[in-house]
Amino acid sequence: MPKIIVEVMPKADLLDPQGKAVGNSLKRAGHSVATVRIGKRIELHYANTPTAAELEAAKQIAADFLSNGVIEDVVSITVEA
Amino acid sequence: MPKIIVEVMPKADLLDPQGKAVGNSLKRAGHSVATVRIGKRIELHYANTPTAAELEAAKQIAADFLSNGVIEDVVSITVEA
Repeated sequence: MPKIIVEVMPKADLLDPQGKAVGNSLKRAGHSVATVRIGKRIELHYANTPTAAELEAAKQIAADFLSNGVIEDVVSITVEA
Repeated sequence: MPKIIVEVMPKADLLDPQGKAVGNSLKRAGHSVATVRIGKRIELHYANTPTAAELEAAKQIAADFLSNGVIEDVVSITVEA
């Protein structure tokens, strides 16, 4: 099924307690990660390959509805046929 | 900062109530999406470009620690320099 994949991450200068907890836990287990950030990956499935208009609409949806612009950034929008 | 990006989605045959709610809401707003699935995007940040061993470790972490194999699939692991 054709998809548009929207990826949303917490803004870089914001605390991400969930990522912080995972990062600390990985460090305690001896892994060399510096920090961890956890965001969302949202798949919009379409019956047919999305048109240019649907892609535009998806960008609008991503900015207005799937992410909170105060605390989150939409980091990528990709079409997967 | 170099990153390893791990993407985790709920398994295809499982209900995803969060995605379902978003999908219904988009449909009610007149959008042409068929279904919506919501998963996680986890960024592991490293001080230096991850070595092959670190990438292997990250794959292990993704499978054992960042995802629940009973209900989730790791759909992609990518390195971003």
